Amino acid sequence: MLINCDMGESYGTWKIGQDKTIMPYVDMANIACGMHASDPSVMLKTVRYAKANDVQIGAHPGYPDLQGFGRRFIEMPMEELKAYVVYQLGALSGICQSEGVAISYVKPHGALYNAMMKNDEIYIALLEAIASYNIELPLMIMAVPDHLHYTTLAEQYGVELIFEAFVDRTYLSNGRLTPRSQPGACHDNLEIICAQAMKLVSEHSITSIDGKEVKIKADTLCIHGDGQLAADIAKSLRMRITEYTESLTCK
Amino acid sequence: MLINCDMGESYGTWKIGQDKTIMPYVDMANIACGMHASDPSVMLKTVRYAKANDVQIGAHPGYPDLQGFGRRFIEMPMEELKAYVVYQLGALSGICQSEGVAISYVKPHGALYNAMMKNDEIYIALLEAIASYNIELPLMIMAVPDHLHYTTLAEQYGVELIFEAFVDRTYLSNGRLTPRSQPGACHDNLEIICAQAMKLVSEHSITSIDGKEVKIKADTLCIHGDGQLAADIAKSLRMRITEYTESLTCK
Amino acid sequence: MLINCDMGESYGTWKIGQDKTIMPYVDMANIACGMHASDPSVMLKTVRYAKANDVQIGAHPGYPDLQGFGRRFIEMPMEELKAYVVYQLGALSGICQSEGVAISYVKPHGALYNAMMKNDEIYIALLEAIASYNIELPLMIMAVPDHLHYTTLAEQYGVELIFEAFVDRTYLSNGRLTPRSQPGACHDNLEIICAQAMKLVSEHSITSIDGKEVKIKADTLCIHGDGQLAADIAKSLRMRITEYTESLTCK
Amino acid sequence: MLINCDMGESYGTWKIGQDKTIMPYVDMANIACGMHASDPSVMLKTVRYAKANDVQIGAHPGYPDLQGFGRRFIEMPMEELKAYVVYQLGALSGICQSEGVAISYVKPHGALYNAMMKNDEIYIALLEAIASYNIELPLMIMAVPDHLHYTTLAEQYGVELIFEAFVDRTYLSNGRLTPRSQPGACHDNLEIICAQAMKLVSEHSITSIDGKEVKIKADTLCIHGDGQLAADIAKSLRMRITEYTESLTCK
Repeated sequence: MLINCDMGESYGTWKIGQDKTIMPYVDMANIACGMHASDPSVMLKTVRYAKANDVQIGAHPGYPDLQGFGRRFIEMPMEELKAYVVYQLGALSGICQSEGVAISYVKPHGALYNAMMKNDEIYIALLEAIASYNIELPLMIMAVPDHLHYTTLAEQYGVELIFEAFVDRTYLSNGRLTPRSQPGACHDNLEIICAQAMKLVSEHSITSIDGKEVKIKADTLCIHGDGQLAADIAKSLRMRITEYTESLTCK
Repeated sequence: MLINCDMGESYGTWKIGQDKTIMPYVDMANIACGMHASDPSVMLKTVRYAKANDVQIGAHPGYPDLQGFGRRFIEMPMEELKAYVVYQLGALSGICQSEGVAISYVKPHGALYNAMMKNDEIYIALLEAIASYNIELPLMIMAVPDHLHYTTLAEQYGVELIFEAFVDRTYLSNGRLTPRSQPGACHDNLEIICAQAMKLVSEHSITSIDGKEVKIKADTLCIHGDGQLAADIAKSLRMRITEYTESLTCK
Repeated sequence: MLINCDMGESYGTWKIGQDKTIMPYVDMANIACGMHASDPSVMLKTVRYAKANDVQIGAHPGYPDLQGFGRRFIEMPMEELKAYVVYQLGALSGICQSEGVAISYVKPHGALYNAMMKNDEIYIALLEAIASYNIELPLMIMAVPDHLHYTTLAEQYGVELIFEAFVDRTYLSNGRLTPRSQPGACHDNLEIICAQAMKLVSEHSITSIDGKEVKIKADTLCIHGDGQLAADIAKSLRMRITEYTESLTCK
Repeated sequence: MLINCDMGESYGTWKIGQDKTIMPYVDMANIACGMHASDPSVMLKTVRYAKANDVQIGAHPGYPDLQGFGRRFIEMPMEELKAYVVYQLGALSGICQSEGVAISYVKPHGALYNAMMKNDEIYIALLEAIASYNIELPLMIMAVPDHLHYTTLAEQYGVELIFEAFVDRTYLSNGRLTPRSQPGACHDNLEIICAQAMKLVSEHSITSIDGKEVKIKADTLCIHGDGQLAADIAKSLRMRITEYTESLTCK
């Protein structure tokens, strides 16, 4: 089970996240590509951290909306959306290439991620964008109990999927996240966060906000890099996952 | 002798240039990369025109300044400038890759082009950016009588150069362009433009604004895509260069 | 009956519209405020043309989306939307103040205009923004047969309305515009455009695309400044409206 | 002696400064206007804090360069620079007007501030911009021993000046700041900062980095809102200036 985290979301003088602190504990860095956050300098620094820590680099494309941090949905023709995605994949790949590394997956950001999960036209546009750019790159989407719809479409376009689950968010009994507008949407206790993570690791399930067991089969756990607890969560999860993996190996 | 032209400089709703009309007559399209002009949709369309017309695609990176069209010099650390250039090379390469083509050279735009010709630190930053990204890509610079300074540095970084001359601008007797602020900086007569072009082609020289013969050895002629005469210049030059080349072959 | 036209929609090097040609024929110039189009230089020049031609200046605020020209709906909290509108009213007022003139009304642009007509929350946000900034400024909205809903709300916030009708668009029998996605959404014949305009002037009605008479009581006719016929429409309408007004006065 | 501080320099999701903590201790808030930092929402919130704390609001216009935070000089024609300044004065005034307050002075930001102090053409452009917009607004510039040059020009354009001194920067013996590129450019000790401040308050002078007494007659002291010590400096200065003023009054 890999840990992924959004990285490189600073912009110019403005800083967000604790990239340097957290990088050593993650396996996959989702790096913003300059449309919703980041700029070429920030991208270059972040690629260098990732490389120095031997962390996989994922492109984290978003809507072109710095002021809204890519959290506002922007309606655009699919042809244009695909061009925006490919532009961002290329830009980050360029920075990577100049450092002798490469991107190894794609995870959309914010409103684009949400739109992908809800709207097939947008999900397909992302699959097509990746297929046209580099079909070897897997697309990271949210792990849900009913994967079939997503996997069927992905296979159709020849794109591999990576499924991620969230450790600091609560789930509804349908396997979707509790909306942030509702109370209890986020966990703010380190122990509870680690417990949810380890249950995902060892039992491939979570306990929903209303107490139901829900099967969630994930390849990677997403942590957030900008909260109070961010560094503690990163360290604790890394330690526990390592312990768990070693315990399996020992048997 | 190849003809190059800046292309893909529209932005959103705003159009500049006559790309569709001119593309059939040129050999090399310098395509803007979204910082001083262009956006992912415009880039995609322009790459498709270039591909359809079998025209070489060059990255045309500029300063991040849409409102100033990349014509205003922006002071930035060399490390940041290199990141900006690599970002743009990557972004256009991404768009190209999704269309099954690739960029084959780099020509800086506007204030960045001027800065490169005047300031070694910036010229070297561009050489380093290209060398780190893809050392196979040649850099297009202005053909001047005294190439040695530029070629020596380029060799040091392992980057090949392409030299371009201008057909619609007048030259000073030192082989530099007459500044636009001075009267007579631009030719506005098709015959004179073609004459200057053919003299560059057949004699590797121009006649300066004050009547001197100046040796200018160029690999490519730059034409502009947005003037009244743009389409006529493109067509006439294409025809005359073809005729000239055929006349040589026949001998 | 006044003629209004969107103006000052160029940006940096990119030009749109025929402001200089059309300004002499209109009564009201809706000037973009730098978010969806225009920049401070363009705004200054446009304010000067308007002043020189004794044309009323209206603020034409839009969503912050240059690349999309303000035609893409951007979801944002009402508090933020109001701040964006007030910012734009202030910015254009600043330019006007430096030229000794003032804005005299507000007409939202593109996706913001459409959102205002369809979504009461957004319509109210605009009324509140104007009321907080300067309650003397009327808001220009689309003239529809059923004004009551809009006038009731406007009165509640103390804001006056100006109703505009379109001369180069066709109407449905419910008094709304034929969507651009449908065939026949636009008139492209000068005579038909003038006929629709004069029917609006003299009979306060239009003939819908399916042949129905529809009452549309407008204070002003909107013309577009960027079409092939733009200048002809402006001149013809100015002449006919003047003739009509004089014919009334003579009686 | 008034305390001024740059405020409202956050942008979208990105936060800079401790505006809420510091606002109660300052007299003048220099509020960014959306070109180098800030956005309409941030401006609105900052104006409300200032109003709630009865703090004077100053417009803090900068070059249009978010990514560079207005710290990069951008060459532009004076006509365009004036339009950019007036745009920003108007935009912030708009936000203020909607909250029932008004701006009371102008302090340029970053590279524009530096350019104003070094380049008469730019200084005059700022004076002209203010004179055209609202001649009642004073311009805040850096207090230097040789005021005459600045005051003479300002009088010529009818604009009043406010002089500011810096408490956390060291001075050269010519009364200019030690460049940030040199060691010892900044004070990082609260006591030393307060001592420099109180010497400016009570003796209208500072001790330069090489031990000379230099006369600096300032109307206001600038503090920075984003350092480790920012809140402590604000509180201490407020207390000491108040004590000093009261001690004078008692005599």
